Amino acid sequence: MAEYSSVFLENAVNELARLPGIGRKTALRLALHLLGEERAQTESLTNALLQMRNQILLCERCHNISDSKRCSICSNPRRDENMLCVVADMRDVLAIERTSSFNGLYHVLGGVIDPIEGVSPNDLYIHTLVERIKKEHFNEIILALPATIEGDTTNFYIFRQLRHFGGKISTISKGIAVGDTLEYADEITLGRSIMNRIPFDKH
Amino acid sequence: MAEYSSVFLENAVNELARLPGIGRKTALRLALHLLGEERAQTESLTNALLQMRNQILLCERCHNISDSKRCSICSNPRRDENMLCVVADMRDVLAIERTSSFNGLYHVLGGVIDPIEGVSPNDLYIHTLVERIKKEHFNEIILALPATIEGDTTNFYIFRQLRHFGGKISTISKGIAVGDTLEYADEITLGRSIMNRIPFDKH
Repeated sequence: MAEYSSVFLENAVNELARLPGIGRKTALRLALHLLGEERAQTESLTNALLQMRNQILLCERCHNISDSKRCSICSNPRRDENMLCVVADMRDVLAIERTSSFNGLYHVLGGVIDPIEGVSPNDLYIHTLVERIKKEHFNEIILALPATIEGDTTNFYIFRQLRHFGGKISTISKGIAVGDTLEYADEITLGRSIMNRIPFDKH
Repeated sequence: MAEYSSVFLENAVNELARLPGIGRKTALRLALHLLGEERAQTESLTNALLQMRNQILLCERCHNISDSKRCSICSNPRRDENMLCVVADMRDVLAIERTSSFNGLYHVLGGVIDPIEGVSPNDLYIHTLVERIKKEHFNEIILALPATIEGDTTNFYIFRQLRHFGGKISTISKGIAVGDTLEYADEITLGRSIMNRIPFDKH
């Protein structure tokens, strides 16, 4: 006998449990929730997922997720076209947008170089970044990649690819988080925070 | 500007975040996961959910979730038709089935009496339970409801409804969990455990 008294329930639980972070117990809870709600809720959920999967594009310029060939940031005339921020993932675009501290354009690499996971430079949008640098004019490129070994490797790789770029290249600063006490910061972060100290009058 | 650079993504996140226990961050992670996988995965997920919502029935006898008019337990000739276990929810059927300690039939109430949440006896399958007792023959009815005030209220209500029932009516025992130390058991549970003590030779 199957685990549940319904093959349809079993299938729904199996499919939900394929999602990351959703175990079989959670999947069952979600399935039973949908069974308890109006049929329309299941329909609007499945429609939204199918529409998203079938209609979303990547912006042809910055590779951010978009509903048209140019994303809403690339086609916004009020963004500063002289600043470019290179990120690994579209979630990073969201995170930076939430800070309201950057008004330039983005370039989404689609990941970082990770030999262990089999991600080579050719799997990322690094070639289109190099092309963009030739065609568009930027005063500064900010590399905002994760503060991991893979992020640092990618930083270094991109830095070399952009060696003919005439403008400024910077990376985001690493250090203790705002609100953190020194006591609880890990030693590497605290070390970086001291190494990258900033003259007091810049604060 | 919307939170995300895509209305389709926004819709998908909104719909996923309506599910219980799924916040907007988790919803975004799930949506981006589906975007990163083959289109077929999104399609099999949405098909499974729609099929489940459109095709699942409640067993006409026990109200357990079923793919046909009679659920797989009710239509299994090897189940003991003289024993009936009354539970609140179909998840309780799953939980009891996993113990392999009950081989009779079930009756799923669809909840417990809960005046604060507005659940009255008429909202539950108590009337069909009373009807079943008249038509079918049971030697024993086990009330396996949650060990909460609402569960106890429902126990008592059902017990009165079944006052003309000739067989045995029992409820599941409450006590400390197997493997528990007394030290960490709450005092009410430990008190019940002492009150409902069992002669040693029955172990």
